[in-house]
Order: sequence, then structure tokens, then C-alpha cells
Amino acid sequence: MANAEIQALIDLMARLPGLGPRSARRAVLHLIKKRAAVMRPLAQALMQVADGARECLVCGNIGTTDICDICRSDKRATGEICVVEHVADLWAMERSGVFRGRYHVLGGTLSALDAVGPDELRIPRLETRITEEGASEVILALGATVDGQTTAHYIADRLSGHEGLSVTTLAQGVPVGGELDYLDDGTIGAALRARRSF
Amino acid sequence: MANAEIQALIDLMARLPGLGPRSARRAVLHLIKKRAAVMRPLAQALMQVADGARECLVCGNIGTTDICDICRSDKRATGEICVVEHVADLWAMERSGVFRGRYHVLGGTLSALDAVGPDELRIPRLETRITEEGASEVILALGATVDGQTTAHYIADRLSGHEGLSVTTLAQGVPVGGELDYLDDGTIGAALRARRSF
Repeated sequence: MANAEIQALIDLMARLPGLGPRSARRAVLHLIKKRAAVMRPLAQALMQVADGARECLVCGNIGTTDICDICRSDKRATGEICVVEHVADLWAMERSGVFRGRYHVLGGTLSALDAVGPDELRIPRLETRITEEGASEVILALGATVDGQTTAHYIADRLSGHEGLSVTTLAQGVPVGGELDYLDDGTIGAALRARRSF
Repeated sequence: MANAEIQALIDLMARLPGLGPRSARRAVLHLIKKRAAVMRPLAQALMQVADGARECLVCGNIGTTDICDICRSDKRATGEICVVEHVADLWAMERSGVFRGRYHVLGGTLSALDAVGPDELRIPRLETRITEEGASEVILALGATVDGQTTAHYIADRLSGHEGLSVTTLAQGVPVGGELDYLDDGTIGAALRARRSF
């Protein structure tokens, strides 16, 4: 048991996803050793982000400005809007570096059980954006889960009224570096059905 | 890829032991969601501990005062000094709640390879304490590793000159809840050699 002040810090750290009491203790001892190089900068960065973080008013991305970097950049005005469930998915798409358009973060999936309807998911906002920005393509990059695909179908239905708008979705298949032996049957089936000429 | 300020925070979080880039991203998104309940208090606690943390001048425990809570408490003046390698070990001993004496944190083990000698390990300080505090027992609670046991033997040798001082070490055996099938041969051997009447 550490001193009360240090224990309070350990308890807070232990509440982070991915850290438990043991790893929180290790992290705190590590931080105390690297006080100048890591601990103070971390405290300052946390405070700064706590003060500054906000959702982009356009797409729902998290940044430190009212309109996020992507929505502000003219280069990203390609007429393509990629719809994702969570901010983490947007960041993952950005890391791949392939998509050059803009995003729309739903904030989850439709769920009757949790009473999440279209209005909770920025879906009306997506429709407004399509009109306002004159979008030509909406890419549904939702999870390959039941909830994700239900939500994708709902959105595709709802957008069918927009003339000249193409609604697409990510390809399903073998992941890069994936070995067939380790893949689930569903993925192999999907990859086979979507096979292409070599 | 997140906004620069948020990415800087993620990079700092990813340097904590037990967190990688992926879990750091998850932790930061979680923190931003729980800004008031977790993020601000965490930033404040980090800053407080960064400012206040110091090694106890007596035993080497980490606390926020020059002399730690344990060394200041008269109740802990039992004449027993428990020697541990690291502060984390001291905390682990305290959690068990069994030991009521004081500690001495070496800060590591003797190592010819890393040029760690007795003077780097607060061993002279331990001898002074034994005399000053009139200690009756030194418990060597060092790791059951080659380095830990080498250090234990060295300390035991060095303390052999103190009259009336008993030098003890932790029992080795089957861990509580341990199944024989999963234990290494060395532990089973040690437990058998140290068997006691039932």
C-alpha cells in the first residue's frame, strides 16, 4: 500500500481501460522515476486535452477545435463521406492513409435493446450534410457485426431517395497477411463469394 | 490519426508500461468521455505526485514526505527490518498486512554485470539503521532469483558481525491456491525439503 496521495493516483490509473491495479502500480512507479521526461508532460497534456477536447460540429470527430482538421481542409472536400461507428474507427481509417474524403461519426449503432434510434446517431445530420456538401458517395464503413450491418442497411435505405448518390461499403475478405487456416468460416465464405479475376 | 494535441497525449500514454499505441488510444478516448470524473482528477493527481513524490530518507520507500508514513509511525518500531529489492515489493508486503515492522528498500540487487555494488544499494545505510534503531531481526525478502539470493547471502554475511541480530528469510514453498501440476520443479523441491508436520 502506497502513501494516500500516491494510492489515489494508482486508483485513478487503474480505472483506465487496459490497466488493472497491478499495472497501474507499475505505471505509477515508472512515472515517478521519469518525473521530468514523462510524468509532468503527461499531466500537462491531460489537462490541455481535458480543457480543449470537443466533438467536431460537422462530423463528430474528436479534436480541439469546433470544426476538426479534416472538415476544415479543402483538400478533403472530395464529395465522399465515410460513415463510421466510433472516433477510434475514423482514426484507424486515417492511419491506413487510403481515404482522402471526409467522415461522419455515428457514435454507435442502432440498437432497439439500448433504445438507440436514428436521432441518437447523427443520421439526420448525415442527410443534411449530403445535401449541403453535394456528396456523391457515402461509404458505409461500419463493423461487420449484426448491429453494424443492421445500421448500414437502415442508412442505405434512408439515403435511397438522394438522387445521384452512390452508397458503398467496405469489401469483405481475407485480411492482408491472413492465413486461411486461422480465418473463421464466415470470412472465408465472404471472400469466396466476392472472388475476383487474378 | 488524431489531432496533433490529442496524438501527443496518446504518444505519452503509450510510453507507460503495460500500454501500447492501441490501448493508449482507447484509454485517451475513454478519458475524453469521462473528462470530469477521471481525466481532470488524473491530471491533477499526476501533477501533485510529480511535485511531491520523494524517497524516504530512512528506508527508501516512495511517499510525499521526507520520512515515510511507516518510518514515522511509532507502532512500526518493532525492531524488525524487512529488506526488499524495490518499492513495489514493499507495497506488496504491506498489502498482505502481515508484517508490522519497518522496511529497507535496496533499490535493486547486486550485479557485477551492471556494476551495482553494496554502496549503490543502501547496504551501508542498512547497517547504520540496525545500530541506530537497535534492530533485533532483519528479514531478507528478496526475490527467489540468482541475483536476489546472491544479494541476500552478501547481506547476511555482512550482518553476521552484529551481535544478537537474527537474519531470516521468507519461507519457500507452494503458493496459496497453487496446484502442484502447474508448479516448477524447483518450487516443489524447496517445498518438500522444507516440509513440516501436519
